Order: sequence, then structure tokens, then C-alpha cells
Amino acid sequence: MQAILITIGDELLIGQTIDTNSAWMGQQLNQIGFWVKEKIAISDDAAHILKTLDYAISQADLVLITGGLGPTKDDITKQTLCKYFDAKLILNQEVLTHVENIFKRRGMPVSELLEMNKQQAMVPDCCTVLFNASGTAPGMLFKKNNAIIVSMPGVPFEMQHIMQTHVLPMMEKISDEHVLHRTLITAGVGESFLADKIKDWENDLPPFLKLAYLPSIGMVKLRLTARGKKTDNLQMPLDKEFEALKNLASEFLFAENDEPMEKTIGKMLLKKNANLCVAESCTGGFIASKMVSMAGSSKYFEGGVVSYSYQAKENLLGVKKQTLEKFGAVSEQCVTEMCTNVLEKFKTDFSIAVSGIAGPDGGTDDKPVGTVWIAIGSKHKTTAKKFHFTKDRSRNIELTFVHALKMLMSELK
Amino acid sequence: MQAILITIGDELLIGQTIDTNSAWMGQQLNQIGFWVKEKIAISDDAAHILKTLDYAISQADLVLITGGLGPTKDDITKQTLCKYFDAKLILNQEVLTHVENIFKRRGMPVSELLEMNKQQAMVPDCCTVLFNASGTAPGMLFKKNNAIIVSMPGVPFEMQHIMQTHVLPMMEKISDEHVLHRTLITAGVGESFLADKIKDWENDLPPFLKLAYLPSIGMVKLRLTARGKKTDNLQMPLDKEFEALKNLASEFLFAENDEPMEKTIGKMLLKKNANLCVAESCTGGFIASKMVSMAGSSKYFEGGVVSYSYQAKENLLGVKKQTLEKFGAVSEQCVTEMCTNVLEKFKTDFSIAVSGIAGPDGGTDDKPVGTVWIAIGSKHKTTAKKFHFTKDRSRNIELTFVHALKMLMSELK
Repeated sequence: MQAILITIGDELLIGQTIDTNSAWMGQQLNQIGFWVKEKIAISDDAAHILKTLDYAISQADLVLITGGLGPTKDDITKQTLCKYFDAKLILNQEVLTHVENIFKRRGMPVSELLEMNKQQAMVPDCCTVLFNASGTAPGMLFKKNNAIIVSMPGVPFEMQHIMQTHVLPMMEKISDEHVLHRTLITAGVGESFLADKIKDWENDLPPFLKLAYLPSIGMVKLRLTARGKKTDNLQMPLDKEFEALKNLASEFLFAENDEPMEKTIGKMLLKKNANLCVAESCTGGFIASKMVSMAGSSKYFEGGVVSYSYQAKENLLGVKKQTLEKFGAVSEQCVTEMCTNVLEKFKTDFSIAVSGIAGPDGGTDDKPVGTVWIAIGSKHKTTAKKFHFTKDRSRNIELTFVHALKMLMSELK
Repeated sequence: MQAILITIGDELLIGQTIDTNSAWMGQQLNQIGFWVKEKIAISDDAAHILKTLDYAISQADLVLITGGLGPTKDDITKQTLCKYFDAKLILNQEVLTHVENIFKRRGMPVSELLEMNKQQAMVPDCCTVLFNASGTAPGMLFKKNNAIIVSMPGVPFEMQHIMQTHVLPMMEKISDEHVLHRTLITAGVGESFLADKIKDWENDLPPFLKLAYLPSIGMVKLRLTARGKKTDNLQMPLDKEFEALKNLASEFLFAENDEPMEKTIGKMLLKKNANLCVAESCTGGFIASKMVSMAGSSKYFEGGVVSYSYQAKENLLGVKKQTLEKFGAVSEQCVTEMCTNVLEKFKTDFSIAVSGIAGPDGGTDDKPVGTVWIAIGSKHKTTAKKFHFTKDRSRNIELTFVHALKMLMSELK
């Protein structure tokens, strides 16, 4: 079953709004066996909407339209749908009562209801109204040439409400397919090396299983997708191949769930009943803030020191003056002292310390921009490792974070 | 001048990735007088790519394609472009040398370069290669029926690099329009309140000037856009109206350049030859990492302490035990001690301290989730203020950052 998503509104085209709706819709539709074949964003232009509708209906079983249903005059989706389906607008009493109730709830007299607000209760006579408890504009369902067309507001929680209450349950009944995904996260290895390592396995995959590489800074996600009829058993072959993939990629494996690295690390620390602190130079608090971004992190994260200056390294972390003078801040000696001292100060089970040259300035022949030392400490030992990253400041910060968590992961394992 | 954006890759259709590229591209193209007419996302399917290319080229002056240029076999954009333009792949020596250099920099012998990596240097013989210093896949420019077609990698910083170095400067020359923007940043005031305050001025704007409200967490950007032929003098009227807007919004004004708040603050600190340190609880290093994200921040940022636990507040920052016992960590007393003590430890001119309940748990009747204390310290005084933010953890962290910088800005002024 194929779906096409159409979003209507200038804000997406001029880059004022980032479209998060369609990612959510894609995920939900996948789960009930619908495959999003295409996403199209266009402006509030009647001719363009009509042409796009014609195209989408000819290509898909399901066409989902969001946006352009507001009460202001720049919103023209409803009128354009009337034109397309040759329909008249009629009053829907249930929607009108609902709009009036929203007004009352907000403490406004119904007599002050504007003509504009009443218009929200007018719907094309050929559509099925999908009641929207979360807002004033209802969803509208149409049928044409074996395709189902649904128009919804673009406000994320209103769209989600209509999808969950009406569209998804209806579509699940119609669908004869299902789609399953499993995702593996690898860190510290390039996409092509990984691909080379698993190529034989990948070539032997049965046709209903598909592998995708999703690289981002410092990591590559491997997504294995199974697609088939509802009557097919997909889970077992998917799990079997996923296990095989896990074994092949074991040395680079970071997690076997599609979740942020800081979440995976947090869960491992919790499981071990251990806690963590950090000493950061070049990342300037980035690692700490990632750890704290997870709800509940106070159970395993104690805090950290951002020792951006030499003085801070001495005063706050007790790095020896002679270490800094002899080896510099970006050195095995300094990062090791930072790591052991911060562990002691925070009295935690594990610590991370990083010191490097993020750039764009500050590099030398000896230590060019991108040189970073990372250390992982525990009561028993401290391990330090040197990395050569890029010339780009923000990438270096993110790469340091990824590799620090990868090193900590190895230690925790 | 009309543009169509095509993104290729299943990850967008199944909702694994949220498309941030096209918003950025839309903004950039707008500035040089290009209008994005349509955005289309499709999967790595050759027939669908060919059909979409045909459609886009018939409709637009500029077609920008992202995605599907990786070295692995699920990426088919390059081969499909060859088919479309009836081209052969030829080796580009500059790209090959670049790929080899990337390998060397990572400490890998060139002899280990895989066939897959070498393939990145193969380009269609009819295209203009747009060198990509940030990655291995180059951009490729084609021409057909008066349209310009550019294919770029989907990795955001690679795409941005190619756009900024090659595509935007070329397109700016072609465009007969120009678009000028000036942007004002306000903090701590709602969009509708601001709109009401400036409505008379906004209604009187000449037709070639347009105001856009760009609200984000804790702030509203006001972008004034002038659009006209290249021969029109737009700068003078734009500057005049921008000054008028600045006066109207003066009490909420944070900056008059569209730059990150941490950059504005950094420039002010530099100008005053002053430096800063931070003590963070609920933000967990977010403020420090924002400060450090700016190149050159070592000139005015010394570092900080992330005192996430009670113990860290006592041990690292010297907050008194009785303060924590009597008033709790989220209190004027605690945040004031954090602020004065961190200033002393780092010996800086200014300090920021924050302590709050980011959520989702940890709230009480007395101090619900979203309660945050922020203090600004200098040698002469410490000012603390209480805020009531939201129930959402990440929004609370960002709101704390925005308001802390707003408070520091007032102090610096």
C-alpha cells in the first residue's frame, strides 16, 4: 500500500518551519504496512494544489494532506478541495457546536464568534468528517479512483490526534502488508569499511529484507527493514539476520536500539549501579550537557568541570603546573591527570576527560587542529587515547563526544 | 527565479530523519532572490528519480538534489543522473587526491583505499564538479533546457559547504532580483505582544518591505525583508525602517544581527576585555558548551562547574551544607552562593549560576517543574531572579540559557 504526503504552506518553502509532521506520519504509516512513496511540499496556490492532487491520486492508495485549513484568508485548502471534488460547502452541526464550546471554555461569549470561526464548521458535502477534538478545523476524508484522500490541519498535535483517532485505525483494516525495522548503531568506523566487512552477508539477504546505511558525525546506523504481507512471518527472519549483522559488526557495535548514545550509556550505568563525572576542555560542557539532556540522569551523572583555561585546569582540577609547562594541555599526561583528579573530586565510579584543539585556531605543527586526547577513568585504571579529527570546530566537538562515549562503553562492557 | 528541491533517501520517507536541509536551503535561496516552489522527497528508486527529475526540470530554473551519493550500494543518485543525462563516469583526479588525503589524515595507508572509496572520485563526464572540501562526494552541476541541476550529498554540513562555496555565489550572479534582510533579536517577550506593539508601524510599511516573525524558544526574531530588482535601491529604506523598528522594540532588544546569542555576548565581553565563568545545575553544561561553540571563546570564557548533584555543589563549589538543607538547591540562597563562589574560583569578571527543576520529575507543590533560579555575578554584586518555565525538560534547559544570557546582557550594558 502506497501513500503520498502533501504539505501546503509557504512557511515550509521559505525555511521558516522545519517539517516534523511528515517524519511522524511516515513512522506511523510504516507500522501498519503503508509505504510513503513521496512527500511533496507546495505553497498556498490553488492551481498547484489541484495539479499535485491529480498526480498524487494517480500514484497512491492513500493521499494525506496537511495545512491550509486555518480561518485566515491565506488558507485555501478547503475551497480548493471543493473545486477538485466538485463539492459544495455545507454546515456540520457537530463541528459548529464544538467550535462554540471551545469559545465558551475560553470564557468568550458565543455571540462574539466571528464569521471566520463559523466557517470552520463548513465542510464539503461529499466528504466524511473526521472529528477533531484538539482544534477547530476537522479532518476531511474523500474517495476518488480507488484512492483515499484525507485533509488535516498542519498543527502537529491536531494532525496527530486525527491520525490516531481516525486515519490509522481505518487504514490498518485496509492494509494487507506490514513493515518491520531493526537498527544497529556503530561508532568509530567509516561507512565504506563497514560495508566492505558485511558485503557477503548483505548480498545474501533475502529480497524482502533491505539494509540502509545512515551515517552521521562519528557513527553509522544500520537499518534492516522487512516488508511483506500481513500473513508472512517477518519477525523471525528479521531477528535472525539482525543477529548475524550484530556479530559481523561486533567490534564497532555501540547499541542495538535506535536511541541517542547518551541514553544507551545512561542505561548501562544504571544497570551497573555506577555513576559518572566529566572533565572537559575542548568540548566545553558538551558531554555533560548531553548526559543531562536525558530525563533521570541525576541517578548516574554527578556533574563535571569545564576547564577551558590553563588556570582552570590547575585551580579546579589540580593538574600540576609542570605537567602543563612540560607537555601542554593537549597531552596524555594532562588528560590523565584531569581524568583521575575529577574522579576523586566527584567520588564517582567512572570519569571522562577530554583535551584537544577544536580549531579553527590554536593548532601547531606538532599538534594540528583536530588533535584530541580522551581518557576514561575508573577506580582501577585510566586509559588515554589520542585522536586526529577534522579542521571543523563543531565536528571536532561532536566527534570527541562520540569517541569518548564509545571508549566508556568498552570500559563498561 | 523558481527552484525545486528534491531529496532522495528512504530515511526521510520512513520518518527516521527529520529534513532540516531543505529549510536551510529555502532560507539561503530566498536571500538571493530565488523562490522555492516545491519540495519533493522520494526514495532511492531509479525510475522514480528519473520521472521526478523530468518534472522538476520542466517547472523550475534551478533544481537542487540532495542525498544518495554515499559509497554504498543503496545510493544510486550518481548512476541515475548518468542515465538521465546520457553520461559516462570518468575519474576526477582532484577528488581522488582529496579522498586519499582524507585517508592519510586519518592515519590510514592509501593502499587500503577500497574500490568503493575510489568510486567517489568518478563523476559523470558532462557535469561541472563542485569540489567538496568537507567530504568525499563532490557536488555535480548539470544543465538542461535552461534549467540548472545540482546534485549534493545529504549530510548537512557537506551540503551547506557546497551551497556556500559554489551554488549560492553562482546563482546570485544569475538572479535579476535581490533580497535584503535585516534581523532584530528580541528575548523575553511573546510574539503577539510584540506584534501588538508594532502594528501601526507594520501597517505603514511600503509594499516592497515585509516583516516576518520568527519565534523560537525564549526569543522572537523580527526579520525585515526588502525585495526588488537589482537596480532598485533597497538598502536605504530598509535601514530606515529597521531603525524605527529597533526603537519600538528597544526594551526587548537583544541583538541587531542575526547571530547566536552566545556570539553577541562574546563580542560584548571582548569589547570590555572581561571574562566569564559558569556554575550550572539544571542546564548541565549547556551554557558552557554554547559559549565554547564559538571559535575564539578562550579569549573571554574560562570554564565552569557542572554541579548536578548536591555533593558536587558542596565539594566543587563550596555551597554551605546548611544552605542546601534549609533552602534546597533550587533557591535564591543556593544560586547566589554558586554564583559568588564560582567567580572566586575562576577569578573572572563575571559569572552565571543556574539551579532549577528541568523535569519531567523532581517537582514539588512548592517548586514545580520549570522553577529555575538564575544569578549573575560580578566583583561588585550578585543579582538573582526566579523564573517559571514549562513542563518540558529540553525547553526548560534552553529557556534557562536564553534568560541567563539576557540577564548578563543587561549587566554588561
